Amino acid sequence: MNNFLSGKAAELKPYTAGAQPAGGGIIKLNTNENPYPPSPEAAKALSRFNAAKLRLYPRTDGGELKSAAAKINDVPNSHVFCGNGSDEVLSFAFYAFFEDAVVFPDITYSFYPVWADFYGINYKTVPLDEQFNIPVDLMLGGGIVIANPNAPTGIALKLNQIETVLKRNRDNVVIIDEAYAVFGAQSAAPLIEKYPNLLVVTTLSKSHGLAGLRVAYALGQPHLIDGLERVKDSFNSYPLDAIAQVTAAAALYDTGYCKNTALKIIAARERTAERLSGLGFKVLPSKANFLFVSHAKLSAIEIKAYLEKNKIYVRYFNKPRIDNFLRISIGTDGQMDTVIKILRECCEKQ
Amino acid sequence: MNNFLSGKAAELKPYTAGAQPAGGGIIKLNTNENPYPPSPEAAKALSRFNAAKLRLYPRTDGGELKSAAAKINDVPNSHVFCGNGSDEVLSFAFYAFFEDAVVFPDITYSFYPVWADFYGINYKTVPLDEQFNIPVDLMLGGGIVIANPNAPTGIALKLNQIETVLKRNRDNVVIIDEAYAVFGAQSAAPLIEKYPNLLVVTTLSKSHGLAGLRVAYALGQPHLIDGLERVKDSFNSYPLDAIAQVTAAAALYDTGYCKNTALKIIAARERTAERLSGLGFKVLPSKANFLFVSHAKLSAIEIKAYLEKNKIYVRYFNKPRIDNFLRISIGTDGQMDTVIKILRECCEKQ
Repeated sequence: MNNFLSGKAAELKPYTAGAQPAGGGIIKLNTNENPYPPSPEAAKALSRFNAAKLRLYPRTDGGELKSAAAKINDVPNSHVFCGNGSDEVLSFAFYAFFEDAVVFPDITYSFYPVWADFYGINYKTVPLDEQFNIPVDLMLGGGIVIANPNAPTGIALKLNQIETVLKRNRDNVVIIDEAYAVFGAQSAAPLIEKYPNLLVVTTLSKSHGLAGLRVAYALGQPHLIDGLERVKDSFNSYPLDAIAQVTAAAALYDTGYCKNTALKIIAARERTAERLSGLGFKVLPSKANFLFVSHAKLSAIEIKAYLEKNKIYVRYFNKPRIDNFLRISIGTDGQMDTVIKILRECCEKQ
Repeated sequence: MNNFLSGKAAELKPYTAGAQPAGGGIIKLNTNENPYPPSPEAAKALSRFNAAKLRLYPRTDGGELKSAAAKINDVPNSHVFCGNGSDEVLSFAFYAFFEDAVVFPDITYSFYPVWADFYGINYKTVPLDEQFNIPVDLMLGGGIVIANPNAPTGIALKLNQIETVLKRNRDNVVIIDEAYAVFGAQSAAPLIEKYPNLLVVTTLSKSHGLAGLRVAYALGQPHLIDGLERVKDSFNSYPLDAIAQVTAAAALYDTGYCKNTALKIIAARERTAERLSGLGFKVLPSKANFLFVSHAKLSAIEIKAYLEKNKIYVRYFNKPRIDNFLRISIGTDGQMDTVIKILRECCEKQ
């Protein structure tokens, strides 16, 4: 009974976000959240925020957040676009820069085809190779989107590989989605001055423990930033609230805290990867805050069920080529100890 | 030098938000912000927010905000959609429900044609009559959008007129945009159970002094709410951050505070309207938190310049039929005293 829907809306296949199980004693490793709280500087900025200021509209351009992102990336403000999470920034970028045959890998962030369909943009997927690597030489099209590290594999391209893609697609925008880059990939941000076709998108959700605040930004030359502003101002002039702007800015400036928590997560990832390999898991080489794993003898669905019985939540994608894998976000050391212990039990039961 | 823009993006004519002049001693009456701070309950909810919770994704559906909106409107949660300001909610609604010949007045919120163009939806405008009233009988199309009260005129339709539009457009969605309704229009919300084609959109920006928080919601039957969810989940799953959800919920529950500030603003509006009429201004009968005025002898541009010289900012629209009007947001009693005084000076100088 939805004959009020437009034809386009009726055809949408919306993105499915990871579940948000609640309750005591659960270990939630299904949506790649950072196990550590945001920087104390962010908490301080939040606690100092004067609610009376909320009566006024926020800055349309991100205000202090824009300045903070520019400063820590050592670029002018004109090279920064701020948005409501990288999902919004990427959505605007699809509209701004793509119209025909945007190209991305077959296995990647599953929102990319959703945005293409949303705006009626054609797309072409390029299959990852047998080892789940992106075949750099085949990334050619009317626009390119690469998650680096890729999701849900966690595998990263090197900077020279990104540069190859940029050089081969000089007439079209290449988006590098760096949601997870802080956990071990080389950022392409230093390349923006050299490549007018490069847009680097990053989010504070994972790197800064701010998934709940909905803040992201893009870096690129001013003509690309202006393109994003045009699209934003044709959709919603003020997508970032005043509290988010100052809280996120404070988090960005605390680069030491961000680095330290990333290092803790990287250490936990490497340790977990080693232990899971020892239990017979195939573990893809991850540069992200998650591991993508499959087991030779146990099905992903069995393992997931066993984990959930033990209140551990991970992510499963029922998709070709990866339907026997699980994506496990990296939690605290204690949480990963529990995960390893439960997975050992699960394997030994066989 | 923007050959990277898509054809669609290049053709956009973005919305222009009101300027945000800053600095001491200014009286900012150009963007219809509430002159009073948000409810102390909202401030309390904000101050109690634990920053550590930001590491987790927020609820995708608005969480506590959705429940609060449902409760104060006495409808089930399934009748509520929450979004990042009414601009986002309206944008989603255009995508979800319109595809051909959506109809709105020629003089109204100037974002409506922008959204139609953004999504490639045809639209038709119906001219307001000589007194700037919406000609209800002519509101017929493949979807209808009415701001009630209308902006920037401030003139409201009565509930029976809204009902006429609903009855004559049973096969298409009718959106009533109630951004300013709290200041004197009858809300159409009580009609949603009777009309499956009615979507009522409201924002907390003006009514609750929360322009800086970016929160709005829509009320409608579940098939319309589901349509909005489909669109949201094809664009950005989490547009409302966790802080905004709880802060806005607390503001909504404090219905007494909202009503009292609205009554103060209404009183200031009526007093200001009377004084300005006495100075020779034509003042449209407003049910909003602004007045739309023109003067028989002084041009709007002259008056605006005189006000700005005195650090008073109002809004001017350089558009047919209204290019000799000014929109003056209603501030505090003290601010309106100053505005009246300066306008008297301006008139006497002639």
